[in-house]
Amino acid sequence: MDKLSLDDPLFATYAIAATLMILKGVSMSWLTIFRMMKENGGFRSPEDVKPTRFNPNSSPDQIKPKDRVERIRRIQANDLESLPYFLVAGLLFVVTGPPLLLAQLLLYGYVATRLLHFVAYLTAQTHDTRAMLWTPGSLILIFITARTLVYAIV
Amino acid sequence: MDKLSLDDPLFATYAIAATLMILKGVSMSWLTIFRMMKENGGFRSPEDVKPTRFNPNSSPDQIKPKDRVERIRRIQANDLESLPYFLVAGLLFVVTGPPLLLAQLLLYGYVATRLLHFVAYLTAQTHDTRAMLWTPGSLILIFITARTLVYAIV
Amino acid sequence: MDKLSLDDPLFATYAIAATLMILKGVSMSWLTIFRMMKENGGFRSPEDVKPTRFNPNSSPDQIKPKDRVERIRRIQANDLESLPYFLVAGLLFVVTGPPLLLAQLLLYGYVATRLLHFVAYLTAQTHDTRAMLWTPGSLILIFITARTLVYAIV
Repeated sequence: MDKLSLDDPLFATYAIAATLMILKGVSMSWLTIFRMMKENGGFRSPEDVKPTRFNPNSSPDQIKPKDRVERIRRIQANDLESLPYFLVAGLLFVVTGPPLLLAQLLLYGYVATRLLHFVAYLTAQTHDTRAMLWTPGSLILIFITARTLVYAIV
Repeated sequence: MDKLSLDDPLFATYAIAATLMILKGVSMSWLTIFRMMKENGGFRSPEDVKPTRFNPNSSPDQIKPKDRVERIRRIQANDLESLPYFLVAGLLFVVTGPPLLLAQLLLYGYVATRLLHFVAYLTAQTHDTRAMLWTPGSLILIFITARTLVYAIV
Repeated sequence: MDKLSLDDPLFATYAIAATLMILKGVSMSWLTIFRMMKENGGFRSPEDVKPTRFNPNSSPDQIKPKDRVERIRRIQANDLESLPYFLVAGLLFVVTGPPLLLAQLLLYGYVATRLLHFVAYLTAQTHDTRAMLWTPGSLILIFITARTLVYAIV
């Protein structure tokens, strides 16, 4: 059977979870851009404070960190520490043929907790809240990866 | 049909785009190394300023940031915010069977704009130029991802 | 033949190498957490120094960098510059049907040198030692990627 067909509900589950997470991840770049435009700063490269068509009234201060921009960069870094691993772990997980309900629970569960974690981080909730929303996603990632490893070895 | 065969022009298109991007991404590590050697600094860890066979005349200044090294690190960070997502999004895109010409345009288009973006960043072009070369790649990534999501849901 | 079956020794080799590397990568997040708890600091977000149930005696100093935490962050950054590329490059490599022994040597070789590199980085060995352990993994990654590219083009 073709494991990489959207007709296969297991692969479709993975494809939905993976594409949602990629769209989420890519959005952080755009959110950084929007906040840099609104704050008129938070840039990173020396050449970014040169006057240009889109930045006619440039100033050396534009390269200083801005809180609202740095927050998105931290969220993006947090994504990069987890999403690329999830994208591959999820694919390996579904090709080993787990029960569909289990796959849906774990993959959509990961997506849901990551989105809630994003909201908590964006709105600067306490570290405790953020940790509580980060942990299930990480445990799901570890579980689906370890399960594939066990199946591959045995 | 075997979707993961290089005899399939769709998969071959993806494989070429993906491997070019991986080679590009990995090159940034080597470029960082070459620039650290040439600048004799820009290191990051406290232990990197200990005298060793390859660094006999070490100095505490070697751990200070060097502009030419930091530029490559920023380029590498920019890669990491996009390439891992592209690598998975591209695979999912081709297994959903898009028209070959569309796949070639989008995947090679992403590669081309990323390489141009790299040249613009390396040579410190203005933010406007860099943004103009970054945007098409990001839009391609969003498009191929969203298309897979729609196909998986419908 | 189903290339994504654990009955295929090539795919099983990849699955073992990939899952080991994902587990290694994810562990860095947990190691960061453990060290932040032990050092009672090294946090990153302004809201992390608010008093909470898990951090009742909070202090503004908790947001300052801590050496033992920053070391793990550097190791994690090093992982992120290589592992996501390896995870995709390895998959493309095995679906192009290399000899099993070659695949085992290269993929397990990558895993072994990354784990040794981790030990060297964690214990603050000299830059020379770290470089010696980093280089083979990067060369393996370049080789398996370039090989797929050549096969895809020819």
